Amino acid sequence: MEHISFPPLSRVAICGGTHGNEMSGVYMVREMQQKPKADQVGSVSITTVLSNPRAVDACRRYIDKDLNRCFTDDLLSAPVTDSTPYELRRAQELNAQLGPKGSQEAVDVVCDLHNTTANMGLCFIFYSLDWITMHIYKYIKSRITSAPVRAIQLDIPMSEAYSLESVGKHGCAIEVGPQPGGVVRADIFNLVKEAVDLTIEWLQGFNSGSTFEGGEVEVYNMVKSVDYPRDPTTNEITAAIHPELQDNDFKLLHPGDPMFLKFSGEAVKHEGEELYPFFVNECAYYEKKIACHLGKKFNITIPSVSVKKD
Amino acid sequence: MEHISFPPLSRVAICGGTHGNEMSGVYMVREMQQKPKADQVGSVSITTVLSNPRAVDACRRYIDKDLNRCFTDDLLSAPVTDSTPYELRRAQELNAQLGPKGSQEAVDVVCDLHNTTANMGLCFIFYSLDWITMHIYKYIKSRITSAPVRAIQLDIPMSEAYSLESVGKHGCAIEVGPQPGGVVRADIFNLVKEAVDLTIEWLQGFNSGSTFEGGEVEVYNMVKSVDYPRDPTTNEITAAIHPELQDNDFKLLHPGDPMFLKFSGEAVKHEGEELYPFFVNECAYYEKKIACHLGKKFNITIPSVSVKKD
Repeated sequence: MEHISFPPLSRVAICGGTHGNEMSGVYMVREMQQKPKADQVGSVSITTVLSNPRAVDACRRYIDKDLNRCFTDDLLSAPVTDSTPYELRRAQELNAQLGPKGSQEAVDVVCDLHNTTANMGLCFIFYSLDWITMHIYKYIKSRITSAPVRAIQLDIPMSEAYSLESVGKHGCAIEVGPQPGGVVRADIFNLVKEAVDLTIEWLQGFNSGSTFEGGEVEVYNMVKSVDYPRDPTTNEITAAIHPELQDNDFKLLHPGDPMFLKFSGEAVKHEGEELYPFFVNECAYYEKKIACHLGKKFNITIPSVSVKKD
Repeated sequence: MEHISFPPLSRVAICGGTHGNEMSGVYMVREMQQKPKADQVGSVSITTVLSNPRAVDACRRYIDKDLNRCFTDDLLSAPVTDSTPYELRRAQELNAQLGPKGSQEAVDVVCDLHNTTANMGLCFIFYSLDWITMHIYKYIKSRITSAPVRAIQLDIPMSEAYSLESVGKHGCAIEVGPQPGGVVRADIFNLVKEAVDLTIEWLQGFNSGSTFEGGEVEVYNMVKSVDYPRDPTTNEITAAIHPELQDNDFKLLHPGDPMFLKFSGEAVKHEGEELYPFFVNECAYYEKKIACHLGKKFNITIPSVSVKKD
C-alpha cells in the first residue's frame, strides 16, 4: 500500500467562535487560553483563536455577514473600504494571522470548532482529499465511542473554499451537535475537548516519527440541498422537518419517506434517489433556505503517512 | 366542595412571537391567521397576535429589551419618548389592543406561546391562583399524553406581573421545550397546537354550560434562581450544567447532587434543601445570569366552575 511522508506539523490553530453563538468552541478556546503553558505541547505549538469576538459578545452567528463564508481567494483579496462588512475585515485579519491561505507561511493545521442544532454527533468537514486531515479523522473515529464520528467532504476547489480552515496547510471544521445556539451543554463540550486533545495527540505521534497505517475511511459528500416548502405568496415556510426525519441525520432516506410535516397536517415525501440527510433542521440554515443537505456515502482508501526525515 | 361561577369567556387571544426566535408560536399564529373563519369558533372569538413582529423578522428574542418583561403597571403607564425602547412601545400597543390590564375591557383569556431550550415538556406558567387558568391546565393535563404537562405559579402581585398574559382577565404562558431558538420542530409544534385546540375546546364547553369538577392540581413555585459559576475577574461562566442535571427538569435535586461541570473538569454540587429544577440551561437566561430555577411542588385544591347564568 502507498506511503506518503510529510514535513513536520508543528503549528496548529484551534479556533472557536467563528460563529458567535456556537458555544463549545468559544468555551474551549477560553479554557485553553487560561491554562498556563497550553501554547506548547511537546512538538506542537498551539495558537488559540476566538475568530469572531464581536459576534461572540453579541451571542449571534455574525454581525454583518457569515464569517465562515468569507475565506475565498476573491474575498480575501478584496479591497477594504469604510463599507466593508466587519466579518470580511476579520477574515483578512485571520488570513494574515494564520495564513496567508495557500502559502508556505500558513499554519500547518487549522481546526475550527462548530456546533449545530442537527443531531450530527461529531462530524469532520473538509475540502479535497487531504491525507493528514483524513488520518486525524480516522484516529479520532477509532477512539471516540460516546458519539458517532463521521466525515463530510466538500467538493470545492481551494480557491473557492469559503471557510476558515481553508487558510491552513491542512484543516477541518469539527461540527458537533445537537446543541442549541447560545447554549453550552457539558456532553457536547466534552466531546469537542476529546476531539481537540486527540488531534494534538495525533500530531505529537506524527512528529515523533510514528507511522500511521492507511486503509479505508468512510466519507459523505453532498449531492444537493433541500429547502422547506414555502407559501408562494409570502415565501414563509409552511412545514417543519417531519418527526421521522428529525434527529435522524445520516439515516438513509428512501423515495417516499416522509420529509416534511406541513403546519396544516399533511406529510411531504422525499422524491428521487436514496440519499443520506445531514444538517437536518440546522438553525442557521433557515435564512440560507436549506432544510437539510442530502448526500452519498463512499469509501476512500488512504495511504499510510509519516513525517519526512531530513 | 366549593363551586364558583364566572361570566362567559367569549374573547380569547392566542399570542406568538412575544420572543421573536421562539418559533412554535410564530408558526401557530401564522397558521391560524391563514385559516378562513378561524377567528370565531362557536361561542369563542379568537384574536391571533404576532406580539413582536420586528424581533420575529430579525429572528431574535427582542430588539431593544425583553418584551415579556414590559407589562408591569409602571412600564405600561410610562410616557413614550423618542428614546423609548421598541418593546416598551409595543407593550403599550398590545395593552391597548388586548387590555387595558386590570380593566373590564380586557380580553377574557390571553394565551401566550413560548419555547424553551430546557427539557420542560409542556408547562403552564401563571400568576396568582386563577381558577379559570388552573381548570384549563387541569383539562389539558388530563388529555395530553405525548409529553409531561406541568404548571408553575409565580408569586407576584398583578401590578408587578411583567408578562403579556397578565393583560387579560385570565391568562397563562404556555412554555414548550426542548426546542432551540430559531428552529421549529414538528413534535413541539404539534404539542403547542394540541394545547391551543384543547384550550378553545374547554372554553366552548364552559360557555355552553358544562360544570368542570374541582379537585387537586399539582403546581410548582419558584424558591430561587441559581447562576453559573463564574470567573471572578472576567465574569465569564466557568462551567456548564452537569450532564446529570441537563435535560432533567422537574427531577428532584438533592443536596450533594452534581449541578455543574466546570470546563476544567470538576463537578459542583447542589447545596441546601431538596428542590425541583426547571428552566435548566435555557438559552435566553444566560444574560439574565440564571442557570436554572429551583422550586417546590405543592397541591392546590381548586373549586368546580361553571358559567354564570343571567
